[in-house]
Amino acid sequence: MQKLAKQDACRRLALIEGQVSGLKRMVEDERECVDILTQVAAVRAALDKMGAIVLTSHVEACVSGTPSTGGRAMNRDDLVHEVRLNLGRFLK
Amino acid sequence: MQKLAKQDACRRLALIEGQVSGLKRMVEDERECVDILTQVAAVRAALDKMGAIVLTSHVEACVSGTPSTGGRAMNRDDLVHEVRLNLGRFLK
Amino acid sequence: MQKLAKQDACRRLALIEGQVSGLKRMVEDERECVDILTQVAAVRAALDKMGAIVLTSHVEACVSGTPSTGGRAMNRDDLVHEVRLNLGRFLK
Amino acid sequence: MQKLAKQDACRRLALIEGQVSGLKRMVEDERECVDILTQVAAVRAALDKMGAIVLTSHVEACVSGTPSTGGRAMNRDDLVHEVRLNLGRFLK
Repeated sequence: MQKLAKQDACRRLALIEGQVSGLKRMVEDERECVDILTQVAAVRAALDKMGAIVLTSHVEACVSGTPSTGGRAMNRDDLVHEVRLNLGRFLK
Repeated sequence: MQKLAKQDACRRLALIEGQVSGLKRMVEDERECVDILTQVAAVRAALDKMGAIVLTSHVEACVSGTPSTGGRAMNRDDLVHEVRLNLGRFLK
Repeated sequence: MQKLAKQDACRRLALIEGQVSGLKRMVEDERECVDILTQVAAVRAALDKMGAIVLTSHVEACVSGTPSTGGRAMNRDDLVHEVRLNLGRFLK
Repeated sequence: MQKLAKQDACRRLALIEGQVSGLKRMVEDERECVDILTQVAAVRAALDKMGAIVLTSHVEACVSGTPSTGGRAMNRDDLVHEVRLNLGRFLK
């Protein structure tokens, strides 16, 4: 993963950890259901955004070449396979 | 919220906290993109399940009556409004 | 399902049919990928909204009683089971 | 879009059109709520799969070069921008 993307993803995950722990406090404090569900939707969106950053960075690495590929860009068929596999897992 | 539903939701949120912190470690350790995205999908599903439990418990409380409604069940129009509002927020 | 909710759901499904057929035309015409994906997200949101209407109407029917329950309201345990089952299928 | 991907996407959209029209019939026939919501989830998954195919094909075209880019592959920054933009719209 690119260094900037990695930093961005980690920073977002730290925020998401805080959101989830805030969500636990909301449930413990018996806050309004609608506020809890609004927060669930916000965490889901934040997670998806983080995933999109990881995937974007991965595609970039495949195209640019990485140490794990000996610095060479992935060939076209492998790239298509990678994108299909990753999108499939991401979208469940 | 019903006591059992609250315990269940809190227990699930504690697990989700652990999953998110595991996810952060995966990104820090530069694990495979596909494994990270698989985990993102798992956290999303766990969050949605937790939200469904909170919403189910809320509908039950509306129908059974709660202290906040003076122990009386919600009337039909208010219940429909509640379900619509909550589903709307939950589904973004 | 309540008569108004049924009409609303049918009207929305007719619109969604039009959106999907528009989407097919976009793919045939090789429109921009980003426009196709924006439309996919719009159809997904429209479907979810329609599903929320069907579910809201169903909860209302369970609480009010329907011909299929001999006009009697569902008891509390059955209602909780219904909501849990339906939310579970809806959220996949 | 690649010819095979385009055919695949169109074929899937024709199936989705049929699913949506089946869904409308289910609502008109007042079928069980849980069956309607199960079908909504199926259509949502089918749409997402179709979108993933379109996006995969688009990334492939960006990397391979297309007539619209004068047959040249997109440069790295443009590709990253493309993937980010498209994922952002797709995930709402």
